[in-house]
Parts: sequence; structure tokens; C-alpha cells
Amino acid sequence: MATKTILLDHGSGGLASQQLIEELFIKHLGNPVLNSMEDSAVLARQDERLAFTTDSYVVDPIFFPGGDIGKLAVHGTINDLAMRGARPLCLSLALILEEGLPLDDLERVIVSVAESCKNAGVPVVTGDTKVVPRGKGDKIFINTSGIGCIPDTIDLSSKNAKTGDAVILSGTMGDHGITIMTRRAGIALEGSLQSDTAPMHNMTARLIEELPDHIRTMRDPTRGGVATSLNEIAANSKLAIELQDEKLPITPAVRTACEMLGLEPLYLANEGKCLVIVDAEYAGQALAIMQTFPEGKNSAIIAAVKAGAPGRVTLTTPMGGSRIVSPLHGEPLPRIC
Amino acid sequence: MATKTILLDHGSGGLASQQLIEELFIKHLGNPVLNSMEDSAVLARQDERLAFTTDSYVVDPIFFPGGDIGKLAVHGTINDLAMRGARPLCLSLALILEEGLPLDDLERVIVSVAESCKNAGVPVVTGDTKVVPRGKGDKIFINTSGIGCIPDTIDLSSKNAKTGDAVILSGTMGDHGITIMTRRAGIALEGSLQSDTAPMHNMTARLIEELPDHIRTMRDPTRGGVATSLNEIAANSKLAIELQDEKLPITPAVRTACEMLGLEPLYLANEGKCLVIVDAEYAGQALAIMQTFPEGKNSAIIAAVKAGAPGRVTLTTPMGGSRIVSPLHGEPLPRIC
Repeated sequence: MATKTILLDHGSGGLASQQLIEELFIKHLGNPVLNSMEDSAVLARQDERLAFTTDSYVVDPIFFPGGDIGKLAVHGTINDLAMRGARPLCLSLALILEEGLPLDDLERVIVSVAESCKNAGVPVVTGDTKVVPRGKGDKIFINTSGIGCIPDTIDLSSKNAKTGDAVILSGTMGDHGITIMTRRAGIALEGSLQSDTAPMHNMTARLIEELPDHIRTMRDPTRGGVATSLNEIAANSKLAIELQDEKLPITPAVRTACEMLGLEPLYLANEGKCLVIVDAEYAGQALAIMQTFPEGKNSAIIAAVKAGAPGRVTLTTPMGGSRIVSPLHGEPLPRIC
Repeated sequence: MATKTILLDHGSGGLASQQLIEELFIKHLGNPVLNSMEDSAVLARQDERLAFTTDSYVVDPIFFPGGDIGKLAVHGTINDLAMRGARPLCLSLALILEEGLPLDDLERVIVSVAESCKNAGVPVVTGDTKVVPRGKGDKIFINTSGIGCIPDTIDLSSKNAKTGDAVILSGTMGDHGITIMTRRAGIALEGSLQSDTAPMHNMTARLIEELPDHIRTMRDPTRGGVATSLNEIAANSKLAIELQDEKLPITPAVRTACEMLGLEPLYLANEGKCLVIVDAEYAGQALAIMQTFPEGKNSAIIAAVKAGAPGRVTLTTPMGGSRIVSPLHGEPLPRIC
């Protein structure tokens, strides 16, 4: 391309927009549906219920250890579909670019989106680009919306947890949140930290295929972390959840960083982890399935659903102490995703 | 709510986010699907092909004569579905808010979204809210994505125009673009101008129901205006299009404003107008149908598809002169939608 940075003209809907679409979006993301370039993508009839979700990504910085805003946007929306038991069908990609964004940075993000889509097997089928003047945005914001198909046998809901159920977490806590935070603060220990951003739809598909009647609900603990997601499930199911402190998976690097910064890993964002609430009788089987996937290899049973005070989440220590784990209040980490 | 402006905390995913969702989004937009508050909305099986579209809205100012960013976001995505011959099924709503946005402004936008959805009969079923620090965004950006269903008999495409076809425009040109521009510039004549933002899905549904085999394609000439949309259709169909200058509908106020500001109305954005390419034999019938709708009452046949140079759009004057109408190059009006 002739210019080296994004200009207002790239958002005009005219020739510069067209050039950006052809030389960047179609080049990297192209597929027969996207390439039709009409006002809407047309998708084949689907003989199942549909899942529909949307998320905007405003993460700062846009490139970070383990990923970037593009990868995050693809994985995040795929995961939101997967948590409802849906098979992701396709994504939309809408960009809000700040005037002056280097075209190289944009291309790097789009290449990352393309790779993430290819690896996950979920195409971008429709898109949009807007440009805002310098100082009215921040480099790049991305919205991905997604459509998925839900097998007829599946009915997952955060209302479905039952007394005695086991709570599985698919791996270590807080990797994404602490990576963004240390990166932004320029703290040196970041070298050993990286975002956990990953798509989880293959793992969740296997789970619901093998245990269709025994998985109650799934949640990806992004903003607000494990603590906030479990509070939502406990509240919606009108039951209590009891976390076992010593069972919580966490890397030494994240633990050290949290201690240094005074942060509680239970509230840190994860971008490639899910909470699975499952009939306790089938928890071992669910765990074994999850551990066969790279994204679930550190899965662990971390909590149990109890008949206690509706909506209450507690943390029990090995010494027998117990404290209430409330949902997140206050914003420790703005622009984490 | 306790606070009067948006805080970073409202985007945390914690209690403040929850409060915003309950006291604003559920209150105004609530419906059984949205209220389930899971990671994805679940929609009933649809026995038709699907249309899927996305658009981000960054219009400045967010309130303007005839509408606001919320109304625009609802109508724009409904119209993108309608242009493919789809019946809009539902929308997603994703907000990027700037810290410090007055909550009253946000509520005004959400009420407008709710009214627009209600009037159009298309619900918001899933959403997302992010907050960016002061100076990293601009008040409010909105992404709406939408799903629609396409009747089996319909196959609209900008490749489908045929020699001899008529081109209908559903009303006056440029009302939205010139309204935003004069409003932003604080020009006094804005009193007589207002945005044409309107949903067109009822009108287009009737058209394709009555003339399923004779409508070739439809486009809403938003960014880039009538000129750019017709260039795309001409290029994709590999035919020429000849506009008749004296047939172009335009209000006296828009004409005056364009003359004052040196703007060409053919390039101005419209937010409630469509171009319909129809078999000439059925053009009168299509025109009559469109004129029965308030949003199409000023519909007019403005051009004809010709066997000339592929992709060329020309404008013929009553005196017999003719000039080429190229697609938009350059950005006369950033942040028009």
C-alpha cells in the first residue's frame, strides 16, 4: 500500500476503504462467503438452535506475550459460543482504527486473526472498518460477534448447578490478567509470564458429546476472574460453592507476581480457561477428557456445589479456615481484554 | 444509580458492570433471551438460510437532528440485513464507553436503542460493555451485529444487475450526511435538515414478496453515498449505469447546504434510503409498492443499467451533457456513522 499509516480516508467507504479491504482483509481472511462483499454474509440453513454472542476488545497493549488483540478477539468469541455448548460456525470482525495506526501493526493483527481463525476452523464471514481521528480512539478496537449451533440434547445454564456437583477449572488462573498488567507496568518479571489465550471449543465439544446429560454449565472466567464467574453461577443456581484453596492451579510466576503486586489471582482475567460444573459422579471422567487437550492439561477439581446460603462462594484453606469470596468490586485492571 | 458518569469500574465485569446491566440494559432492552445473561444468546432453530452482518458506529456528534448513535446502530444493521432480502431476527449490542461519559447520555442512547428495536420489531439478544480511559475513546462507540433469515426464493447480489434494468432510489439523497456535517460545523441552516435514519426491512420484505423474481439487488447507500454504491453494483455486474440528473430526489435544504459547502450530494451518506435494481418491466410496480411506505414515499427511478463500459457510472443532464461519476475518493466527512 502507498501509505504507511491509517488515514481517515480508510474509513470513508470509498476507494481507500476498498483498497484496505482487498489488500489486507480479503488477502488474509478471504473465503467464499467473505469475498462476496455484500451488505450481509449469507450462510447455509442450520438444522439446530443457534447461539449468538458479541464482544469488543480494547486491550492495552495490543501486542503482549502469548498473543495480541486479534487472537484474543477470535478466541474470546469462540469461547463464549463454546460455553453455551455451541459449535462455532462463523465470526464477524469489526474494527475501529485510530488515525495514524501503522499499517504494519494493522497487518500484524489481521494476520493473527487469520491464523487464529484457521487454527480454530472458524471463518470470518463479514466485517466493517471505521477510522476515528487521532486521540479519539486508541490504536485499534475490535468487535467480534459469532454464531454457533447447539446440539438438540444440550441445555447448559448457570441456573443448572445442583448440590454435590463438582467444579472443574481447565488450568492455571490469572495468566492473562497478570501478563497484561506487568507488561503495561513494564515490570521485569514479565519474561516468564504469558497470556493463556486459546480456543476451547474442541474440548467443550468433546465434553458435551461424551457427557451430554451430566455437564450442568460452563463459563470462561474472563473479566472478574474465577471468583466472579463462580459467584454468578452460585447466585443463578441459588446454591453455595466451596473452593478448596490448595486445589487452585496457579503457576509459580503468577503467584509471585500477585504477591508482589498485592493482587488476588481469583479475580484475574483468564482467556483460555473454563469452569465446568458437572455431576460429581462424572467429574473424574470429565477431568480425564479435559486433560487430553493441550488447553485442559492442567485441569483440576477446585470446588464443590453445596446446599449452603444461596449465592455464597467460600474459600477453604488446608488448615480448615474459610472466608467468603465476593464478586469483583472495583477495577484492578482496566482494558484487560 | 449512585454515580453520574461512567467509571472504568463499569467495564470491569464485576459488580459495577452488573449494576449497569441490570439498571440500564435489562431495564430498557429486556426480553427473555437477553435476560438469560449467559455467555451467548440461544435462538430457536431457523428453517431458512441466514444473513449475518456487523457495523460499528462512531458518529460525532452522538445526538443529532433526527436521531442519535443508538437509533443509527439499530437501523443500520437492520438495513444491512434487509438489503440481502433477509428478515431481521435479532441484534447484538456492544458498547465502548469513554470514562466520564454522563450516565444520562448513556441512558438516552439506550432508550433510543430500545425504542428503535421496538418500532422495528427486532430485539437485542446479547451484548457487551467495555470502558476505556478518558481520551482513549470518544463518548460512545456502538457495534451492532445482526442475524436475519432469507426466504428460499431470494438471491440478491450486486452481480445480478442486467442490461435494461431500472434503478430506484427510495427517497431524497444526502439528508444524513449533510445533517451531521452542518451540525458538527455549527452551521445555522441545520434547523431545516435532519437525518433520514430509518429501518427499511418492512418495505424491502414487501418488495421481495411481491416481485421475488424481478428484484436483482438492493443496497443502502451509506458511506460513499449513491455514487459509490452504484459504482460497486456496476463493477460487480460488469455493466454501466446511467444516472439522470433531473430525476435525483433531493430536498431544497440539502441542495442549498451542498451548494454552500461545495459538496456533491451523490457522495453524501444516507441512513434510511435504498437503491433497488429491478427488471425495467416491473419498475413501475416496485415504485408503487415502495411509495406506499413512509420511508419510500419519495422513491424515484433515477438511473438505468446499460451495456456500456463495465463498471462505468455516468450522469446525464437535461441538456444532454454527460459526465463520469467515480466512486468516492477522499473523506469529505469522517465519523458520519
